[in-house]
Amino acid sequence: MSIAAYGWSDVEPDAIAERGQHLLAACPLWPIKFPATRHLILQAALDTFAARGYHGSTLKDISRGTGLSTAALYVHFASKQDLLFEISRHGHEVALEVVEGAAEGGTDPADALDLLVYSFTRWHAEQHTLAYVVQHEWTALDSHHIAVVQQLRGRIQTSFRAVLADGANSGELDVPDLRGASAALLSMCIDVARWFDPEGPYTPDGLGRSYVALARRLFVSTPVASR
Amino acid sequence: MSIAAYGWSDVEPDAIAERGQHLLAACPLWPIKFPATRHLILQAALDTFAARGYHGSTLKDISRGTGLSTAALYVHFASKQDLLFEISRHGHEVALEVVEGAAEGGTDPADALDLLVYSFTRWHAEQHTLAYVVQHEWTALDSHHIAVVQQLRGRIQTSFRAVLADGANSGELDVPDLRGASAALLSMCIDVARWFDPEGPYTPDGLGRSYVALARRLFVSTPVASR
Repeated sequence: MSIAAYGWSDVEPDAIAERGQHLLAACPLWPIKFPATRHLILQAALDTFAARGYHGSTLKDISRGTGLSTAALYVHFASKQDLLFEISRHGHEVALEVVEGAAEGGTDPADALDLLVYSFTRWHAEQHTLAYVVQHEWTALDSHHIAVVQQLRGRIQTSFRAVLADGANSGELDVPDLRGASAALLSMCIDVARWFDPEGPYTPDGLGRSYVALARRLFVSTPVASR
Repeated sequence: MSIAAYGWSDVEPDAIAERGQHLLAACPLWPIKFPATRHLILQAALDTFAARGYHGSTLKDISRGTGLSTAALYVHFASKQDLLFEISRHGHEVALEVVEGAAEGGTDPADALDLLVYSFTRWHAEQHTLAYVVQHEWTALDSHHIAVVQQLRGRIQTSFRAVLADGANSGELDVPDLRGASAALLSMCIDVARWFDPEGPYTPDGLGRSYVALARRLFVSTPVASR
């Protein structure tokens, strides 16, 4: 048996995929409690920021996507900055919910790693527009807004690292360089939002499964016999 | 011996780092043949696009970073689009040079993989501003410019996949899913440009070494005995 054998064959892919899908179903694109007009405006702002960047977007560009007047937008949001903050805070909160849900939902660190990589990858594919804006536009926030978002970003990173650190401590995972390894794993998942194409060869589910197999190669240290 | 042993210990880290550094030294930030004013304007445009995005940047913003008037900019570049195209084309050409240089410089596929991951990671850390704009702003190009850049992007992807495919064919590398595996490996390297902080805990060299060890875990199939 070669290292190659550490792929899906061992990890009950359907069971992980089902649990991951269940976890993501509890994390909708926008909070359900929002009224419909608020949803509509946030979605138009998101699409505009994704297409033109925060600095390249005007409230007029955003209102065009809603069918409302720019004046009507002000009933719901104070400014373009306010819209970016709502999107950034919400997007980071959902990402954190996915990460913490997976980290806490694992029966052991290797299982938590599977669930985390599957769910976080799939989320970045399914919600690629939100995820892209969340990861790339938060630096345009005002400093008091940045403080809120950075606190959420810190918790996402901490939760990610904790799964690897727990596994390293228990001997189930083999992590050579905790900081570099968690950066690489986060990058694999997060960068999906940059390149994912719904018309392309992967489904979000298929990509999640493929990345779980890769993550197990990186960190699962169960000894293997030579082939 | 565990999978953990597939790290730096086997791969002569200093030799790979030295060859990677040599490769990158031949890929300067801007072509040497450019006159100084052209350098100055391209650098200001790059910094402005990185900070505000293409759509959020004006020629006035860019000229502010050069000490030249906006009128003086027009002597060298026809438009903001022209500046983005110069930066995008050049940046993709350099990235391709790094990737093809590594792919062709390897003594065998595993060695090419080491050299590729080291050099491409280090380039994204050292030239993080150029690399970020290259990866994220090219979609703002006009369609005839996009065609040029997409051709270069295609060659980068092909060259990356060819290293993994050659290794899989020769049996030196073990690649479970060529498309997904090369996407994940590209993402690990490319996403460095988003988060790399020159003040942070990693040097570009240290990060390159750490990522080579991870890439070997992913794809090197040399059989190991159980520990």
